[in-house]
Amino acid sequence: MSDIAPVLARVDENLSSSLEKLFALLRIKSISTDPAYAGECRQAAGFLADYLGELGFEASVRDTEGNPMVVAHHPGATAQAPHVLFYGHYDVQPVDPIELWTSDPFEPAIRKTENGTEIIFGRGASDDKGQLMTFVESLRSYKEIHGEMPVAVTILFEGEEESGSPSARPFIIANKQELTADYALVCDTGMWDPETPSICASLRGLVGEEVTVTGADRDVHSGDGSLVVNPVHVLCDILAGLHDESGAVTLPGFYEGVSETREDVRRIWDELSQMPANLLAEYGLSIPAGEKDRTSLELIWARPTAEVNGIAGGYAGAGFKTVIASKATAKVSFRLVGDQDPEKIRDSFRAYVRSKIPADCSVEFARHGGAPATQLPYDSPLLARAKAALSEEWPKPAVVTGGGGSIPIVGDFQSILGMDALMVGFGLDDDRAHSPNEKYNLISFHKGIRSWVRILATIADMPKSGA
Amino acid sequence: MSDIAPVLARVDENLSSSLEKLFALLRIKSISTDPAYAGECRQAAGFLADYLGELGFEASVRDTEGNPMVVAHHPGATAQAPHVLFYGHYDVQPVDPIELWTSDPFEPAIRKTENGTEIIFGRGASDDKGQLMTFVESLRSYKEIHGEMPVAVTILFEGEEESGSPSARPFIIANKQELTADYALVCDTGMWDPETPSICASLRGLVGEEVTVTGADRDVHSGDGSLVVNPVHVLCDILAGLHDESGAVTLPGFYEGVSETREDVRRIWDELSQMPANLLAEYGLSIPAGEKDRTSLELIWARPTAEVNGIAGGYAGAGFKTVIASKATAKVSFRLVGDQDPEKIRDSFRAYVRSKIPADCSVEFARHGGAPATQLPYDSPLLARAKAALSEEWPKPAVVTGGGGSIPIVGDFQSILGMDALMVGFGLDDDRAHSPNEKYNLISFHKGIRSWVRILATIADMPKSGA
Repeated sequence: MSDIAPVLARVDENLSSSLEKLFALLRIKSISTDPAYAGECRQAAGFLADYLGELGFEASVRDTEGNPMVVAHHPGATAQAPHVLFYGHYDVQPVDPIELWTSDPFEPAIRKTENGTEIIFGRGASDDKGQLMTFVESLRSYKEIHGEMPVAVTILFEGEEESGSPSARPFIIANKQELTADYALVCDTGMWDPETPSICASLRGLVGEEVTVTGADRDVHSGDGSLVVNPVHVLCDILAGLHDESGAVTLPGFYEGVSETREDVRRIWDELSQMPANLLAEYGLSIPAGEKDRTSLELIWARPTAEVNGIAGGYAGAGFKTVIASKATAKVSFRLVGDQDPEKIRDSFRAYVRSKIPADCSVEFARHGGAPATQLPYDSPLLARAKAALSEEWPKPAVVTGGGGSIPIVGDFQSILGMDALMVGFGLDDDRAHSPNEKYNLISFHKGIRSWVRILATIADMPKSGA
Repeated sequence: MSDIAPVLARVDENLSSSLEKLFALLRIKSISTDPAYAGECRQAAGFLADYLGELGFEASVRDTEGNPMVVAHHPGATAQAPHVLFYGHYDVQPVDPIELWTSDPFEPAIRKTENGTEIIFGRGASDDKGQLMTFVESLRSYKEIHGEMPVAVTILFEGEEESGSPSARPFIIANKQELTADYALVCDTGMWDPETPSICASLRGLVGEEVTVTGADRDVHSGDGSLVVNPVHVLCDILAGLHDESGAVTLPGFYEGVSETREDVRRIWDELSQMPANLLAEYGLSIPAGEKDRTSLELIWARPTAEVNGIAGGYAGAGFKTVIASKATAKVSFRLVGDQDPEKIRDSFRAYVRSKIPADCSVEFARHGGAPATQLPYDSPLLARAKAALSEEWPKPAVVTGGGGSIPIVGDFQSILGMDALMVGFGLDDDRAHSPNEKYNLISFHKGIRSWVRILATIADMPKSGA
């Protein structure tokens, strides 16, 4: 391991200039969902490319069909040093409703709370400008102390993450060679709590399906019920049949590729069981839904789901209409874990639905994406080293968590570039990402930079090829 | 029985002047759903009151909150003569899409088809101006021949039937004394086929319920599925559970008050089984839905139903949104038969729904009407006499049918005025009521008038109080 004590000391000394850089970036209104801010998005990309250039990177702003990517390369200290790909995004969410902000979202400021906590306010403070700058600033201090980087670094900054990353996959495919490294690092997730850092080791996959059942060739007066088939009934039967009484999904073959959570992982999660209880309370709920005899964390992180995300059929306006609809439609998504195959699950769903359609009715399907789950193996040396490094920095030891959602670009790193991703971030649940008065605790920024110093130092000691 | 031969002959002689009267009524654009035609509705009411006045009625146009009613009274030939209340409606459906009409909807005309059938074209030709005029014209011929009416007659013409009859029930309650008679007659239904007249002896009742299930206090990202309860799942389970595998409704007590169809009635219906097969084919369907081992006619006329008329929850727009909705809602209606109690069924439904709501979710209900089924007893002398009278007039004997829908005013006649209603009409399935190129066969109009002459004659021989 490189000597990191002087680098960490430099991080501390650099904090106010690091904040200046961050603030300059936060002032750029790089809202990606509104085309009116396309110029500001390009400005943010240019700002980052320029800054990386100053740090010795070969950096460029690269056009896409949407907002540009920033790609930058820096060699490692030695030819033997591993090569990391770091991903973050410079675009931010819109600021509406603007009237709920207590100060200008694009005039960042540090304020002290009553208990003395210093907080960075501004759109993008945590998601993701503050987070991506933790990585960049760790590199700066390395460079300043050692004159070189501990590992070879490729940086990919995206400008469309908040609007669905339409350009990401084509860009990764088109630049596969250039973007491939030994390890991928992502800084867009959160801490377990303000004292406990977290590594997100898994994300669930996703299959989206839209199903439309057609009965009569037009809406029918319900005076002809129940002679005329009601496609809403057919659809409700189908959807109700997706789960059995234990909450398990009934589709044939659905659990192929799903492993039970390892005992050691389960023990860790059992200790972490506090958060999802809070999550339910936050939504005004108290009873975990889904499979019985599973812990809440297991349900979100390690178990697959079938969810109806939308349903419509017949008359749903004000008042009442005694109609038997001609059509009923639902949007259904499956969250996948382990080695579940998205296309096999899509096929199983469609076969199940078709088996429940009366002979004189018809059914149509539309596909809405499909991606497998991603998982950083629990015995990965990268995970073990990152955990140790984070535990050195923070008051409490790092925990390994999962994610219930899906980040398609992490799947792309795995499926296209063949790289596992280490997801580490310093956001907190109360950071209000996507909401008014977004913030990032100063300690998250400061210790985040220090955390990357430690993680990069330990990666420098690893072999070049992936764990 | 009065001597009806000269009255029938007079009907034949009067046919062209009867048509002139009908055409004058058809020219009035009495569209009730569009307030722009309120003046024309009042004009139609005035036209009818004036005409009834010419026939010796004490007739008046009576204001309501909406379009006016026409109420008219004529004494019977003797104090012992029974008293009938006749109901029809002078308002018509809108004419959109106007471009599909082959001639002006309000310029009625008689045209001959290739096989020589004469047909009256125009909005309201069958629904319901043509039909109500069959009754009025039968009275005219009576009056002209005998100088008096065979029975005491009260007429109630409504002007809001096509827009939900909002004023009918309050009007009937407010004028209970004036409107009560021995028998109610309604001319707003159809023939079994062009040669077979029909008496509609029953209508189903209706209970409407709207149910809204709430889970989380806001929409939740489905990355938290299945930890967070999905109210669409809860609702689909509830709705799927409303029917068992045999198609029967599962609500406790639902079939209380439902009798099996009498053997003699069932035998008649078995012979009539042709029409509903056609009905299914007309909608592009072939398999009767609903309870197993029931004939199609039984299903529509004599069995209660539970139907979902509308469902909505989550994201149903274009594309896909991985959301777990906070709320899901459905509109559910029950068609009732026999002595089923609307309020007991509403209570049973609500209790069933509540029993399926997870403890941390909530449910709200909204009521949308409730009315019991109406039934003219199969052994009613009125039914037997009307059947005989119609069978005299038409090529084939009259059949007794049921109706799958609900006509609330007929329920009001029963529940408020204590009167059974005889529903006889001369419309045909291809009359295109509510559609462009509405028509009424000339023979329906002509034989319809003659049919009422016969029915009134036979009622004149009945006792004053209801069957």
